[in-house]
Amino acid sequence: MPLLTRIRGPRDLDRLSLEELDQLAEEIRTFLVGAVSKTGGHLGPNLGVVELTIALHRVFDSPRDKVLFDTGHQSYVHKLLTGRQDFSQLRSKGGLSGYPSRAESEHDIIENSHASTVLGWADGLAKANQLLERDSHVAAVIGDGALTGGMAWEALNNIADAKDRPLVIVVNDNERSYSPTIGGLANHLATLRTTDGYEKFLARTREVLERTPVVGRPLYETLHGAKKGLKDFIAPQGMFEDLGLKYVGPIDGHDIEALESALARAKRFGGPVIVHCLTEKGRGYKPAVEDEADRFHAVGVIHPDTGLPIKAAAASWTSVFGDEMVKLGREREDIVAITAAMLHPVGLKKFADAFPNRIYDVGIAEQHAAVSAAGLATGGVHPVFAVYATFLNRAFDQVLMDVALHKCGVTFVLDRAGVTGDDGASHNGMWDMSMLQVVPGLRIAAPRDAEQLRGQLREAVDVDDAPTVLRYSKGVVGPAVPAVGKVGGMDVLRKADVPVPDVLLVSVGALAPMCLEIADLLDKQGISTTVVDPRWVKPVDEALAPLAERHRVVVTVEDNSRVGGVGSAIAQALRDAGVDMPLRDFGIPPRFLDHASRKEVMAEIGLTAPDIARQVTGLVAKLDGLPPARLRSNGGTPTDGTTAARTADPVEPARD
Amino acid sequence: MPLLTRIRGPRDLDRLSLEELDQLAEEIRTFLVGAVSKTGGHLGPNLGVVELTIALHRVFDSPRDKVLFDTGHQSYVHKLLTGRQDFSQLRSKGGLSGYPSRAESEHDIIENSHASTVLGWADGLAKANQLLERDSHVAAVIGDGALTGGMAWEALNNIADAKDRPLVIVVNDNERSYSPTIGGLANHLATLRTTDGYEKFLARTREVLERTPVVGRPLYETLHGAKKGLKDFIAPQGMFEDLGLKYVGPIDGHDIEALESALARAKRFGGPVIVHCLTEKGRGYKPAVEDEADRFHAVGVIHPDTGLPIKAAAASWTSVFGDEMVKLGREREDIVAITAAMLHPVGLKKFADAFPNRIYDVGIAEQHAAVSAAGLATGGVHPVFAVYATFLNRAFDQVLMDVALHKCGVTFVLDRAGVTGDDGASHNGMWDMSMLQVVPGLRIAAPRDAEQLRGQLREAVDVDDAPTVLRYSKGVVGPAVPAVGKVGGMDVLRKADVPVPDVLLVSVGALAPMCLEIADLLDKQGISTTVVDPRWVKPVDEALAPLAERHRVVVTVEDNSRVGGVGSAIAQALRDAGVDMPLRDFGIPPRFLDHASRKEVMAEIGLTAPDIARQVTGLVAKLDGLPPARLRSNGGTPTDGTTAARTADPVEPARD
Repeated sequence: MPLLTRIRGPRDLDRLSLEELDQLAEEIRTFLVGAVSKTGGHLGPNLGVVELTIALHRVFDSPRDKVLFDTGHQSYVHKLLTGRQDFSQLRSKGGLSGYPSRAESEHDIIENSHASTVLGWADGLAKANQLLERDSHVAAVIGDGALTGGMAWEALNNIADAKDRPLVIVVNDNERSYSPTIGGLANHLATLRTTDGYEKFLARTREVLERTPVVGRPLYETLHGAKKGLKDFIAPQGMFEDLGLKYVGPIDGHDIEALESALARAKRFGGPVIVHCLTEKGRGYKPAVEDEADRFHAVGVIHPDTGLPIKAAAASWTSVFGDEMVKLGREREDIVAITAAMLHPVGLKKFADAFPNRIYDVGIAEQHAAVSAAGLATGGVHPVFAVYATFLNRAFDQVLMDVALHKCGVTFVLDRAGVTGDDGASHNGMWDMSMLQVVPGLRIAAPRDAEQLRGQLREAVDVDDAPTVLRYSKGVVGPAVPAVGKVGGMDVLRKADVPVPDVLLVSVGALAPMCLEIADLLDKQGISTTVVDPRWVKPVDEALAPLAERHRVVVTVEDNSRVGGVGSAIAQALRDAGVDMPLRDFGIPPRFLDHASRKEVMAEIGLTAPDIARQVTGLVAKLDGLPPARLRSNGGTPTDGTTAARTADPVEPARD
Repeated sequence: MPLLTRIRGPRDLDRLSLEELDQLAEEIRTFLVGAVSKTGGHLGPNLGVVELTIALHRVFDSPRDKVLFDTGHQSYVHKLLTGRQDFSQLRSKGGLSGYPSRAESEHDIIENSHASTVLGWADGLAKANQLLERDSHVAAVIGDGALTGGMAWEALNNIADAKDRPLVIVVNDNERSYSPTIGGLANHLATLRTTDGYEKFLARTREVLERTPVVGRPLYETLHGAKKGLKDFIAPQGMFEDLGLKYVGPIDGHDIEALESALARAKRFGGPVIVHCLTEKGRGYKPAVEDEADRFHAVGVIHPDTGLPIKAAAASWTSVFGDEMVKLGREREDIVAITAAMLHPVGLKKFADAFPNRIYDVGIAEQHAAVSAAGLATGGVHPVFAVYATFLNRAFDQVLMDVALHKCGVTFVLDRAGVTGDDGASHNGMWDMSMLQVVPGLRIAAPRDAEQLRGQLREAVDVDDAPTVLRYSKGVVGPAVPAVGKVGGMDVLRKADVPVPDVLLVSVGALAPMCLEIADLLDKQGISTTVVDPRWVKPVDEALAPLAERHRVVVTVEDNSRVGGVGSAIAQALRDAGVDMPLRDFGIPPRFLDHASRKEVMAEIGLTAPDIARQVTGLVAKLDGLPPARLRSNGGTPTDGTTAARTADPVEPARD
């Protein structure tokens, strides 16, 4: 890497000739394939923006100028050019983040990985530049997929409003985000690509069509209409100029000279400009370019030549869901599925193949996913919207005001819930069980193993007058955790052998094995523990308060923010039942988590069996100095802990 | 009202001649001005859609066909035509809702009042029609203002994707939502209006410009560019056809015959069609048409001839905020303000007049408001985004992932927080203090009176490394509630005269007078009570747990959902401090609230002084049968309640 190792900052690019820049691009590609195949990470998106990133840093003077990346997983090249070339610990504790990071570099601005935000950031930064009369430019890179998100539209509408506020928008158009980009916008962008000839354009469309049977048909039909094609052939700026935005392009996104020239013109323009660049995701890496499922968007550890995973994949939560959806789809014709541009990652590809007219890819548009689901449910079908837990935050208002207020039977399936770790703060699914607690009528299931996932999915889609939510972890599904009994709707995972056990331990979802381990550790301290899995964590099971009363302390453990989560809800349910007893709620502390492995994060925040067992032991020791006093909800004589022992054991045997 | 009283359902319209339909329109206008001036309600929007609604119900066969209204306050005419003509109790308990209501009529679909959702609903309903092969049409009415919301874009992008799925989108273009519609889209729509001549179009633009100094300048400059005007003069369909949507228009929205003809053609088309209608908000009612501040968008009780309010307006929370913002703006040049199309309603008009280059109206685009605020803050200014509390739900992800994760100094000012009542379920600001609890680093202030509002606004804008939130009620600000002492950062509003008071009552925001009343009622029962106002309710003041320990029970009262709200946060803070004592949290129950006056709603949900005092009395009576046992956080010997009395009185005298 003779050139790359000499680049210590963006200005070192100034000295290179065009030939050297091309050589640098090749070195960077080789570096990325070698480095990312060892650590895992976002490979395809970064291979696509090598030349574009070089050109950006040649034309804009970061950090005085602000170079912004949407959904920052495409910032690896930017990192290499701004003094960060040690990728050996990429996405690991202490190593480079997989996203921009203000702590890493003054060249980084936007850390989060939620799509479609960059134009809003750019608008704000450009406004501040204008107000403070600062000599600084803003360049924002956004993918064609991210333009399908409503926020991008809101921002464009605002940016177009100020003709005298300089701002360069680079549309990185690779025809796909995770999945091929869908919708009217994709069609329009495809049309804009056609200045090099209508025929080539139709050929390309046919290619896209062949790769994507689900969304391809309407796409092709639209584009085939000659009228539209011809109109835009004459006026390729199309929609963007309708909004009042200057349009430059399309530019070959792998031609550094052409890119520099276009970006320099855009920078000089003095107002908002769109530079439309055509790039190829995975460029230069054969396994990525040839892969229709876009498995190289983000990879684990792979063999650099073949692109094949080093570790064999075990059954994941995602695949269990995906398989069960196909079964459900066969049984019930009224079940439809929705994805927000993540057909493969959320496990809906098999469903889409089996039921091509019952899958809707709405683009990176979680709001639309939720609202159109309300419409679908009102229209008489049952939609299942599968999405990463962290991205449902985008649709909070729509879940509340459209789905829940109208009592629509919509099932939300939240993948990657809880600590995911290596993708950093914005990928952890740690908010859902708090945010959704406030939604009236909504029910939340947290399956603890594959069988529960299958069963609870079926329970969820049977609810037709309220939203239901299933949430599960990232990665490999753990071993089956059998129930040994039942209390109300709750599964008892472990019974205590004494009349008045010390601890009622409430386990949420995939943390069941950890909770059983906590119980074992407590057992060694002579602390007796009942472990229950409520299965449905919202609403709180009515049997919980009476069961709690037969213990001395309640402990809840969840893979979600402690604030307003399941523990808080259970504490409130106990108060409402007049059961005033000590409770300790364990979960994720209310702060953003730095990237590290899930295990490391869990250890750091104290969500481990030994940590929790130690704290519970301390609490019980305190209690032993003082018998627990409780108020009875029935208004009768207050009793101490021993009285409860006289009532019947509420744990029934498990009914299979 | 010879014609109107004969209309019992939409099909009764079929028998009327065009002349009779025009007469009906006039009768409806007269009815609306007379009825709404007595009850208050949304007058302007409904006067603008009289002919349009008549035409819709002539062409579409509701309820078999679905006629949908965005931001349903424009549904009064629809109500009149679908069998609901008793407006005497409009927006009052037991009377007609101010929005569509499924409980009222099978003709109503979307109940909520949050903008820009209708196209998503329409997309879902049309998809269901297609799947189930149902012979049913969908017509969705959306204002030009609501098109600035990102959800509308997400929906259009999806709707355009299916050429064979019938769907009629009616754009009700009156150039304004609450405020004149802003942004590139507004410019484009204005251009579409110009088929009647470029000169007339420029004249209209100049008019708009004169009415709206803040956003008018860039608007005019854009439109004045002849190139753009001429291009779209030739191809008026512009942006919508770029997306692949059939465009019909512009149509005179007050010409029933033209409307019927256009809608009938659109219905027959067999795919998605946009029908662009030009209407005049407030049509036929002189005070409304002539009012630049759009005070007739929603009115209280007014004199029908003059449009002047019957009751004189007292100082509102909104006006106190608005006045203080002007002062702050003079003192600090780095303060800018943001509104989402609600300049007047949130009280920012004076600020806009004083600092025209420091106000940003982003359109109905709360997401963009929050993200661009993050950009502005990163760029070195301090943005204040004033918005109705219920609408901030739209920007939850952006507050979390853009503002808070990046530690941006942005102040969110939430007006209409708590129970607002007469606008129904979706207008109550009852979610913010729950939703925002989970946001790391964010601080929430709930001022109890005008002086606190002014002071806390100043405290909020002084924070430059975290988001701050101010939330206050709708309407008239109450009397000043003085502090009698201070504990940590909390104001003591009432001291108990005994060493170990029974109750620590935590009052949130505007409920302070009610909490003092509760304390008086408890006093009469011999129950001693300390009342504190934490002022900043997030994070929980560190002085709260030690103070709580010196009481026997903690009671919290908030005008927010009980679930995950301030009470829950305080309960968690006490647990974390090892203070295990009875707590009761009063707030809004987790359900959607039917429309009624605020007072009626508060009574219905038990948020009144007598209700709360009665419950607290019951709790204390139980406690009297059993001394409260608590764990000390310091790990020392557990003590009973009396021990606490020996420690020093923590209440310091108020400073100033």
